[in-house]
Amino acid sequence: MNNYPVMMGLVGIVGLLVAFVFAVLIAKKPEGTDRMKELANSIHEGAMTFLFTEYKVITVFIVVLAVILFAFLDNKETALNEGLYTSVAFVYGAISSVLAGFLGMQIATKANVRTANAARTSLGKALIIAFRSGAVMGLSVVGLGLLGISVLMFVFNAMDIPMGVTLQLITGFGLGASSIALFARVGGGVFTKAADVGADLVGKVEAGIPEDDPRNPAVIADNVGDNVGDVAGMGADLFESYVGSIIAAMILGITSLKLEAAVYLPLLISGAGILASIVGTFFVRVNRKGNIHGALKNGLWVASALVVVASYFIIKYMMPTDMVMNIFVALVSGLVVGILIGLVTEYYTSEHYAPVKQLADSANTGAATTIIQGMALGYKSTVIPVILIVVAIYFAYKFSGLYGIAISAVGMLSTLGISLAIDAYGPVADNAGGIAEMAELGKEVREKTDALDSAGNTTAAIGKGFAIGSAALTALALFAAYTSAAGIKVINITEPQVVIGLFIGAMLPFVFSAMTMNAVGRAAFDMIEEVRRQFRDIEGLMEGKAKGDHKKCVDISTKAAIREMIVPGLMAVIVPVFVGWLLGSTALGGLLAGALVSGVMLAISMANSGGAWDNAKKYIEAGNFGGKGSDTHKAAVVGDTVGDPFKDTSGPSINILIKLMTVVSLIFASLFTVNGVLGM
Amino acid sequence: MNNYPVMMGLVGIVGLLVAFVFAVLIAKKPEGTDRMKELANSIHEGAMTFLFTEYKVITVFIVVLAVILFAFLDNKETALNEGLYTSVAFVYGAISSVLAGFLGMQIATKANVRTANAARTSLGKALIIAFRSGAVMGLSVVGLGLLGISVLMFVFNAMDIPMGVTLQLITGFGLGASSIALFARVGGGVFTKAADVGADLVGKVEAGIPEDDPRNPAVIADNVGDNVGDVAGMGADLFESYVGSIIAAMILGITSLKLEAAVYLPLLISGAGILASIVGTFFVRVNRKGNIHGALKNGLWVASALVVVASYFIIKYMMPTDMVMNIFVALVSGLVVGILIGLVTEYYTSEHYAPVKQLADSANTGAATTIIQGMALGYKSTVIPVILIVVAIYFAYKFSGLYGIAISAVGMLSTLGISLAIDAYGPVADNAGGIAEMAELGKEVREKTDALDSAGNTTAAIGKGFAIGSAALTALALFAAYTSAAGIKVINITEPQVVIGLFIGAMLPFVFSAMTMNAVGRAAFDMIEEVRRQFRDIEGLMEGKAKGDHKKCVDISTKAAIREMIVPGLMAVIVPVFVGWLLGSTALGGLLAGALVSGVMLAISMANSGGAWDNAKKYIEAGNFGGKGSDTHKAAVVGDTVGDPFKDTSGPSINILIKLMTVVSLIFASLFTVNGVLGM
Repeated sequence: MNNYPVMMGLVGIVGLLVAFVFAVLIAKKPEGTDRMKELANSIHEGAMTFLFTEYKVITVFIVVLAVILFAFLDNKETALNEGLYTSVAFVYGAISSVLAGFLGMQIATKANVRTANAARTSLGKALIIAFRSGAVMGLSVVGLGLLGISVLMFVFNAMDIPMGVTLQLITGFGLGASSIALFARVGGGVFTKAADVGADLVGKVEAGIPEDDPRNPAVIADNVGDNVGDVAGMGADLFESYVGSIIAAMILGITSLKLEAAVYLPLLISGAGILASIVGTFFVRVNRKGNIHGALKNGLWVASALVVVASYFIIKYMMPTDMVMNIFVALVSGLVVGILIGLVTEYYTSEHYAPVKQLADSANTGAATTIIQGMALGYKSTVIPVILIVVAIYFAYKFSGLYGIAISAVGMLSTLGISLAIDAYGPVADNAGGIAEMAELGKEVREKTDALDSAGNTTAAIGKGFAIGSAALTALALFAAYTSAAGIKVINITEPQVVIGLFIGAMLPFVFSAMTMNAVGRAAFDMIEEVRRQFRDIEGLMEGKAKGDHKKCVDISTKAAIREMIVPGLMAVIVPVFVGWLLGSTALGGLLAGALVSGVMLAISMANSGGAWDNAKKYIEAGNFGGKGSDTHKAAVVGDTVGDPFKDTSGPSINILIKLMTVVSLIFASLFTVNGVLGM
Repeated sequence: MNNYPVMMGLVGIVGLLVAFVFAVLIAKKPEGTDRMKELANSIHEGAMTFLFTEYKVITVFIVVLAVILFAFLDNKETALNEGLYTSVAFVYGAISSVLAGFLGMQIATKANVRTANAARTSLGKALIIAFRSGAVMGLSVVGLGLLGISVLMFVFNAMDIPMGVTLQLITGFGLGASSIALFARVGGGVFTKAADVGADLVGKVEAGIPEDDPRNPAVIADNVGDNVGDVAGMGADLFESYVGSIIAAMILGITSLKLEAAVYLPLLISGAGILASIVGTFFVRVNRKGNIHGALKNGLWVASALVVVASYFIIKYMMPTDMVMNIFVALVSGLVVGILIGLVTEYYTSEHYAPVKQLADSANTGAATTIIQGMALGYKSTVIPVILIVVAIYFAYKFSGLYGIAISAVGMLSTLGISLAIDAYGPVADNAGGIAEMAELGKEVREKTDALDSAGNTTAAIGKGFAIGSAALTALALFAAYTSAAGIKVINITEPQVVIGLFIGAMLPFVFSAMTMNAVGRAAFDMIEEVRRQFRDIEGLMEGKAKGDHKKCVDISTKAAIREMIVPGLMAVIVPVFVGWLLGSTALGGLLAGALVSGVMLAISMANSGGAWDNAKKYIEAGNFGGKGSDTHKAAVVGDTVGDPFKDTSGPSINILIKLMTVVSLIFASLFTVNGVLGM
């Protein structure tokens, strides 16, 4: 027994403490006018209402799954109560994920109004508030993740449970994280897009009032949506990847590398990453030129450089000399590839580069050509990320085997504390803009919040690249862990049950996307009906004399999100178990591989098509090709609306789908036979 | 040595003779008015101009590839001149495919005007002409395919070349078929959609003249497009599947079943299928109620029933008693699944069922919701076909191993003579309608051709289902043949090079779709510019006093199609060879599997989204949700335009991509090492 779990648990706590300090600093800032307070309060309340409603449903799911784990996972030969401990770890993981989302949202819904208020005086101060809010989310995620794994490690070590079994139990923590992630992503994604589309279609298009106009009763729901989708949803997503990559690396440390030091290495690297991220946060400041984008990236570069240096020494300290460089290369390849995928995503989705400009140009010939071009852009944008992922796999494996692949995922996610901060900053800036508009703070304030928001859109692209790249590598590492847990050395594509698995697996992301896209459609329809009803029934609403019932809109989005998240969520858990039982463990392996590869393509293409349509519209709104109100703009709006569920609901949910299905398979691996009941 | 190749060669010739008789019968029918003759002549000329331009480019490709085969495929140990013979077989396959396409187009461009003329008096007579034209295409494809393989079989047998080597050489015939197929599909697909979109956008939308209006100079090109895309393209596609499935089954007969009778069985079943198809054609007649749709399906049912019965006796005659039922089950499962996939396709794309009606309804809320719903529909429509394919794989393998999978593909395609006839009938009916409109034959004629056209749209759905289902099973059978040719027993997904292959493979259909979608966009843009120019520069064109330069439009579509088909075509040949060389034969196996599963999903979803958008528009045009000219209709037109390249260019090209890459890998299998030059 060693002290690493205690040390890393402390590092996790340090992360949480820094998050707490940032939260206190934010809370101390003034909120501005009464109108601003009122608006912020409505958003805060709406977000919390959604979260608590969601938690109620999730609790049922968690309890049921915990009972199943408890009942089915005991290994009669060992008498170690695997079922009980896995179940406990699972609940702990779920609670940690919920807590990370809750903390992130709490502070985001406080920071939005304070950012808007700070923007009345200074861009730099506004940036600091918004960014620190993101950092609270980022550090909560990594802090709770590292703390959770360390605590479980410490406890199971203290109970003298063998290392192999301990890691199997800790996988329960990952399952908890994954389950919450799926519900949070799908639920949050449906909520935010239903509100967004509803607010836009009735408000902007039918009633002809501007975006974020206070008369529009769906605007509060739209702002709530930014928080539940982009803050809580994204946080849960990356909490899962973070935890998953660490657990997979630990498992492969023992099964593939057969070295106990290799089990602790991912913990230590992640610990170094948390400290590096904390340091990085202090480098985020606006220079004299007001370059926000550069300021945000600075923090990431500093943290990345620190992690690389620290990791080298950690690896040197922990591992046998002949392995040091090999593992270091694997780690760095993951980190570099993560950043490169982010930059490629930026290239394809930012209005500063050719693809989005050409997409905007295609809107000149109407909505149809915009859609075709945008789809093609998304499909084409899979090439470089796939090559990068493949190169990372090649180098990681060549130098350190399967363990190398897991370590490259750990490397990619080591700076999550700050990269998630940069990402979660976006919706806060977006909300601040909404509040500035609704509270009628004037043009110069709105300009500052717009500048913050615009930088957020670009850095969000980097975040999405990270999310997809890390999901791919994490899923792959978890997949490798699954095969060792299931006791299968070979999953042979020339065998029919594996081909069957591949086909079914490749299909799942498509069906899943269809379900989430339809979910947004249905939810948006409910919202549209309600907003129309309010404009019709509430006298004086259009004239600004009466107030809309924004709570009702939040309520509709909440109900729709909860209703729509259940079936896809259950599907992700039930299908792999069913296929494993019916067709056996190698067919399930095929399913996971099929879902991984087709899911990565769909996720990348949907995210990039959606991002590109969004920015093509903004590019036109900035005065190009006829600007706002032109036919070209109308065509671009169609693209943007199609892109909304692509980039904010279906696409990101696929990331989680592929990880969750793999974790579920890993947990239940011991229950499947090679041939299943239908045996080939 | 036995007589089967001679017998089956004769059956092939019988098929060709019947096609010839049908062609003569069609040619004897009157062409109608001078205006009709002139129009038909323009379409015929345009189609031939395109074909000959295309053939010039293809010839270069064929010669180069033939030289490469000649140079690289000699096996020094055997002194059998494998390179030379493969090269000859390849050229023969390419010529057969070209010939099938040429014959089909020749007759289709004669039948269109005669169908229009017959429609002036009788619906039944018009149906017979259009259907027989389709049958010429169908019987040419299967006749040339079976004849080709039989001739090569006979010659190589006569030369005393060992069976294993013979089958390897015959694969060259399949490569020839596949290469032509890709160029024909991509080229034809780009041609037809460039013309279609160009004619629609400028004619219908900008100039406000009806579809097929003679003043529109792109209308001839549009009608040419139906022939080069839906007749020649579809024919080459299925020629490839047909030949590929037979060759794969023959190879697996020797490598998997190790029985010479198993090598000849697929030939005999295909022969029975040709005769059954011929019989089936005589059952296609309109009953008193004028049910065209039913008449077409009747022919297919009769042929299918005959093939099932005949196959049972053939299998009983050829194979050891204990295998008879097993192989028969595999065969029937393929045939049944093919038909079921067709019916599912019809369900998702016909305006008679809920999905298309709901899609039309979604057009009420604008273009964006139409696109989202249509995409979701396509994604969702992958579920049942995938389950059906998987069930076919399960039963086929369970009962007869890998050979069973190949035989199920042979079963599915055995009735191709008539199922392709039903499919190729569609564009003839479509053309007839165009000619009726341009020659101003009056409303009652147009109504008859519309009835023919509408039935064609539905049966085309069945054809597309067959094309996708057979592509999946054929590619899988070819894949199995590849692994045995490459001498690999295991392609293990837990090995990184296989995962790398899977990722790259899954990406290729996405990139390929992006390329073909962009190609249509660019080509349509050229066409739009030209039509606009003509309306602007040619005085009296709009008033119907001057004639448009339709040759120029055909020329633009031709040039664009040729230009755009080259890169995707080369990619399909070069990428697998490159990956096989770089990363080895198991990585290439992963690539093929990845491309297969992601390609099938994309192909199904694109075909069905596109088909559904097309028919949703027609459903609205029939007077629902406000009918023609309403905002709902405009939204539906956007969906239809997006769907055009989906269903007629990108989607069907993917079918060929996955087959062609597998055949290329099979041909060059002996050149790859297990680890490639980058070795893991």
